[in-house]
Amino acid sequence: MYRAGIAGATGYTGYELVKLIHRHPSLELGWITSESNAGKTMADVHAAPWEYPLIPIDEAMQRADEVDVVFLCLPHAASMTPVRAFAETGVRVIDLSADFRLQDAETYTRWYGVEHSVPDLLPEFAYGLCEVNREKIRGANKIAVPGCYPTSINLALWPLAKAGWLQERVIVDAKSGVSGAGRKAKLVYSFVEAHDNFSPYNVGYRHRHIAEMEQVLNEAAPGETRYRFTFSPHLLPVNRGMLSTIYISVTDGVREADIRDLYARTYAGEPFIHLLPPGQFATLRHTTHTNTCAISITPVDPGRPDGPDYVVVSSIDNLLKGASGQAMQNFNIAAGIEETAGLL
Amino acid sequence: MYRAGIAGATGYTGYELVKLIHRHPSLELGWITSESNAGKTMADVHAAPWEYPLIPIDEAMQRADEVDVVFLCLPHAASMTPVRAFAETGVRVIDLSADFRLQDAETYTRWYGVEHSVPDLLPEFAYGLCEVNREKIRGANKIAVPGCYPTSINLALWPLAKAGWLQERVIVDAKSGVSGAGRKAKLVYSFVEAHDNFSPYNVGYRHRHIAEMEQVLNEAAPGETRYRFTFSPHLLPVNRGMLSTIYISVTDGVREADIRDLYARTYAGEPFIHLLPPGQFATLRHTTHTNTCAISITPVDPGRPDGPDYVVVSSIDNLLKGASGQAMQNFNIAAGIEETAGLL
Amino acid sequence: MYRAGIAGATGYTGYELVKLIHRHPSLELGWITSESNAGKTMADVHAAPWEYPLIPIDEAMQRADEVDVVFLCLPHAASMTPVRAFAETGVRVIDLSADFRLQDAETYTRWYGVEHSVPDLLPEFAYGLCEVNREKIRGANKIAVPGCYPTSINLALWPLAKAGWLQERVIVDAKSGVSGAGRKAKLVYSFVEAHDNFSPYNVGYRHRHIAEMEQVLNEAAPGETRYRFTFSPHLLPVNRGMLSTIYISVTDGVREADIRDLYARTYAGEPFIHLLPPGQFATLRHTTHTNTCAISITPVDPGRPDGPDYVVVSSIDNLLKGASGQAMQNFNIAAGIEETAGLL
Amino acid sequence: MYRAGIAGATGYTGYELVKLIHRHPSLELGWITSESNAGKTMADVHAAPWEYPLIPIDEAMQRADEVDVVFLCLPHAASMTPVRAFAETGVRVIDLSADFRLQDAETYTRWYGVEHSVPDLLPEFAYGLCEVNREKIRGANKIAVPGCYPTSINLALWPLAKAGWLQERVIVDAKSGVSGAGRKAKLVYSFVEAHDNFSPYNVGYRHRHIAEMEQVLNEAAPGETRYRFTFSPHLLPVNRGMLSTIYISVTDGVREADIRDLYARTYAGEPFIHLLPPGQFATLRHTTHTNTCAISITPVDPGRPDGPDYVVVSSIDNLLKGASGQAMQNFNIAAGIEETAGLL
Repeated sequence: MYRAGIAGATGYTGYELVKLIHRHPSLELGWITSESNAGKTMADVHAAPWEYPLIPIDEAMQRADEVDVVFLCLPHAASMTPVRAFAETGVRVIDLSADFRLQDAETYTRWYGVEHSVPDLLPEFAYGLCEVNREKIRGANKIAVPGCYPTSINLALWPLAKAGWLQERVIVDAKSGVSGAGRKAKLVYSFVEAHDNFSPYNVGYRHRHIAEMEQVLNEAAPGETRYRFTFSPHLLPVNRGMLSTIYISVTDGVREADIRDLYARTYAGEPFIHLLPPGQFATLRHTTHTNTCAISITPVDPGRPDGPDYVVVSSIDNLLKGASGQAMQNFNIAAGIEETAGLL
Repeated sequence: MYRAGIAGATGYTGYELVKLIHRHPSLELGWITSESNAGKTMADVHAAPWEYPLIPIDEAMQRADEVDVVFLCLPHAASMTPVRAFAETGVRVIDLSADFRLQDAETYTRWYGVEHSVPDLLPEFAYGLCEVNREKIRGANKIAVPGCYPTSINLALWPLAKAGWLQERVIVDAKSGVSGAGRKAKLVYSFVEAHDNFSPYNVGYRHRHIAEMEQVLNEAAPGETRYRFTFSPHLLPVNRGMLSTIYISVTDGVREADIRDLYARTYAGEPFIHLLPPGQFATLRHTTHTNTCAISITPVDPGRPDGPDYVVVSSIDNLLKGASGQAMQNFNIAAGIEETAGLL
Repeated sequence: MYRAGIAGATGYTGYELVKLIHRHPSLELGWITSESNAGKTMADVHAAPWEYPLIPIDEAMQRADEVDVVFLCLPHAASMTPVRAFAETGVRVIDLSADFRLQDAETYTRWYGVEHSVPDLLPEFAYGLCEVNREKIRGANKIAVPGCYPTSINLALWPLAKAGWLQERVIVDAKSGVSGAGRKAKLVYSFVEAHDNFSPYNVGYRHRHIAEMEQVLNEAAPGETRYRFTFSPHLLPVNRGMLSTIYISVTDGVREADIRDLYARTYAGEPFIHLLPPGQFATLRHTTHTNTCAISITPVDPGRPDGPDYVVVSSIDNLLKGASGQAMQNFNIAAGIEETAGLL
Repeated sequence: MYRAGIAGATGYTGYELVKLIHRHPSLELGWITSESNAGKTMADVHAAPWEYPLIPIDEAMQRADEVDVVFLCLPHAASMTPVRAFAETGVRVIDLSADFRLQDAETYTRWYGVEHSVPDLLPEFAYGLCEVNREKIRGANKIAVPGCYPTSINLALWPLAKAGWLQERVIVDAKSGVSGAGRKAKLVYSFVEAHDNFSPYNVGYRHRHIAEMEQVLNEAAPGETRYRFTFSPHLLPVNRGMLSTIYISVTDGVREADIRDLYARTYAGEPFIHLLPPGQFATLRHTTHTNTCAISITPVDPGRPDGPDYVVVSSIDNLLKGASGQAMQNFNIAAGIEETAGLL
């Protein structure tokens, strides 16, 4: 039996991890932290019966030896200091923030607008996109869990990029449930403003997750391929779920059957990848409340001379495969236990 | 052509009034106020094309002479001072807050927890429950618009109370859309918390609107009748709409046909009362985006010896008949123009 | 490892069972049936990756020996014939329909409007309200899973009824998510009609589930107590969840502390009962996607002379504790395995 | 005072027209038809108080002389015969189906899969995209109301196409509320299936509305420009509203300021076009329950060498500007009355 600590347990990803651990056959809860709710219990903050006490993170740092793994569910930039503190104790660290996903501290600063205070730790982190990076995750002691949008998009495009078939221009029209914005009292995320509404944000080439998408696909692709994304996220009136509609072109001569075969081989045996047959499209419903990524591939129109060749649709639950579920999958891989434990 | 000022125009009821005035054939906008958004325009705050400038209320008080009527859409306790200031200028005042609904300043203090600073003004206000109090509203210069729950419940019960047929014990199980809580950034009203949820609040005998329900029905009923409500409001995952399910008993010997006849006569010709035929129930859909109150009356079980005799269901749009629509109906009556102007 | 068959697997309760079995540590899927989708797979009908073939029920009856338990998720009246057929093979039968919940065939006919074709089987069924009837469920070979409304209401009132403290008049204002109506193409349950709506139905003393509520509480109560429900269900614009707001009176002299103590003792150690502390109310969020029943008890107003004394609010997920989750809990108890298996 | 007949009045667009006429200062209802509900009244079918009788269309054809205008809200292919019948009486015909939008009967057949039975009438129809075609609509006796997607997309792109600045490759990622599918009992549009879901359909080059988009823009553009759309519609979990996210490139040398100036001039004084300032994006909330089209234009990334140059977002209410509101706007223009009558 392993024990887990969760830093930032009352946000949506932290709370989701509590629920996953409750269900996990070989992981149990050590301590959980919350700055704003320290002194209360989980049952005071969320509609659940769990009287787990919430402690401040400073106290948790003193109690690193009580747990085998620390999941950090903190806002970006807030993870750096506690990650270093926990890392020094030798405990396994799984960070869900954006702070250790980008290999390059300068790129981090350019997109996130803050200096990276522990750039020396960056090379020590395995990038936790499980289906892509499983070998590096096995036994890893420090793991950066990918962002929700990059998980959704990179799982959908990685086979094509690795094969060298994906053209560099990629247009992504993405849609996310409101929990993706975190648990906060902001008018724009209030019920009356978001319900019966649907709204674009950070349209074009403005969202921070673009750096992570390009990093993964550039690294996968042969040669000097440099992907250039146009990325328009939208806020969906649902609590959870993320759907990315991706417009791509492929190398001349690559046929639809080649692509389907490539995906089938690449993802053969993957427990959390659901490839849809021709004629079906991935929907939110395929993945909400699961750790699955569902992918559909549709040719635009075989007889047309130019424009995008395919529309790839990718669906995940932003709180599970896009955050806490993938964090747990990473733990399972790193700890060498059944990869699906607690995730079915 | 009349001109209107709106104090507190960026909240949901204020904004709804702006929309109603935009549609009204003989009312146009003078000035609109907002403390937190002064200096911006309506288009900066709400998703609408209207570049109306938002001014502070202090400036509006200096410009009372530019308008024929002031609608005050301020939180309770915040209306008292501006109401006095506007009243002194002689402009017609229509107040949507709770501050001038109760005839008795002590009752106000008991339920709202603050002293009433202008109790001398209370007797000058007409209570704006239009179908009940139309004669007093005609030509009135100061009108207190009823609360949403009291509107819903009192319109549904007033004919029975006035006839002396309604027993004193009344149980109301009420449900309101989230806009009823006002436009504010609070976690409990955030999308993720309220969506796919349904939650009771102030259960039993705790909600401030009870005083207003009992005041209206006690006054309507003959003799010393004193209604005693049990009132449980709930938060519905919709933006707008309010449905009250009301469990009542009636005087022995009163038959269903008597009641239907009573309601038909009482509300004959009323443009905003929709009485449903036997076997149909009022739903939110009957009234959202309208100024209508829909009412259904259903006998529980004719063969049963005791317990409630009828379930009366009342539906209104909390932002229209429950607030801004009724405010406009009051203006129309008071100004002597077509009662339905701008409200179809 | 046990194996399960599911009759009627493509409806919402059947599909929920497939998901629960997928997660269960010691139960796996044998066959699943669907009349309208026979020949297809689960992945053709629901947004899931499971290629389980759907067979007609006639074929399933021939293959009863392949499974250890049959869950029947059929409409009322449709369960009678297959239950007899499966029962004759000796396989354990867990029926989710209404057909074997009422002890008395005449009562069944009065409320459901059809003759009971296998009344001789009625006494062989254990009534599967787990927390109330656990001893009879242990080892039972035939189990009738309670209806969703009766589960919600009887768990909330059973301690009081058994103690003899609950007065006979009970008013229930209940609200259910749309999945409670089953998986069917009917206009009234279409998205546009049900979204942003909220509507009462079967108001008063008309819903079939009343017979089951009264049966359980009458049996629990001492002496000749005969409960008389007023019951008004409403359709909530959510997929899943059920909240019952219950207005009750108790025996003179019974204090709030007595009641809280009674519930705490009655439900001590129950893994699926969540009693809320004073001042908190049960909400949908407490139970959706769980097998839990959350219960809050609130005194109306200690200083009032009459009327209901308490408002009891009960929340369950209609598809889990109200159907498939409780069915699984029954299986676990009957099979003698961990009661929470597959249900965390 | 004009009088209107509505054929197909119980569907969502027909019912929306009834509501618009109820509010219109110079248009009143003559007769309304429904095949499936003939003999009932509107109050029997929709949650409204209107006891208007529903008559069969055959009877309506005999009563064409009682009305000044007939709005046809029938499914595609069903409009042809009644349009001919009404046209022969000389009454003004405003058709909301797809049957008279395409100038070319062959194109109609290719996309809609049925022969056009009255191709001779096609040239007599004015295409009712009001802001584009106002001069032809004035006084027109037969008007084809544009489809919802084409309205949304063509209003957003028409200024650029007419200026010759819009490149031929256009990618549209569109999202529509469920009412766009019509009022029908189909499982895919049931509440439980569509709520908390989001799903693509007809992805690529498959949706019938593409023909209409290309027709309008090809005609607007100079020379032999032939637009080639990639079009992916999605079903949004809202009742009403349509948002199109459009990825375009423009002629070299055209600057953002040129484009903003072009749109401002083109749409100057238009009462139903709302151009958003730089940095703001069109959302559903900008247009639901209004006849407005809101348009935002955002450069992707000025420093990038290729790919789409701009993301144009267009928002309309599919039932108003996308159907019944635009139909009414057409009536107002054709009849020579105030264009905004009944539409504020």
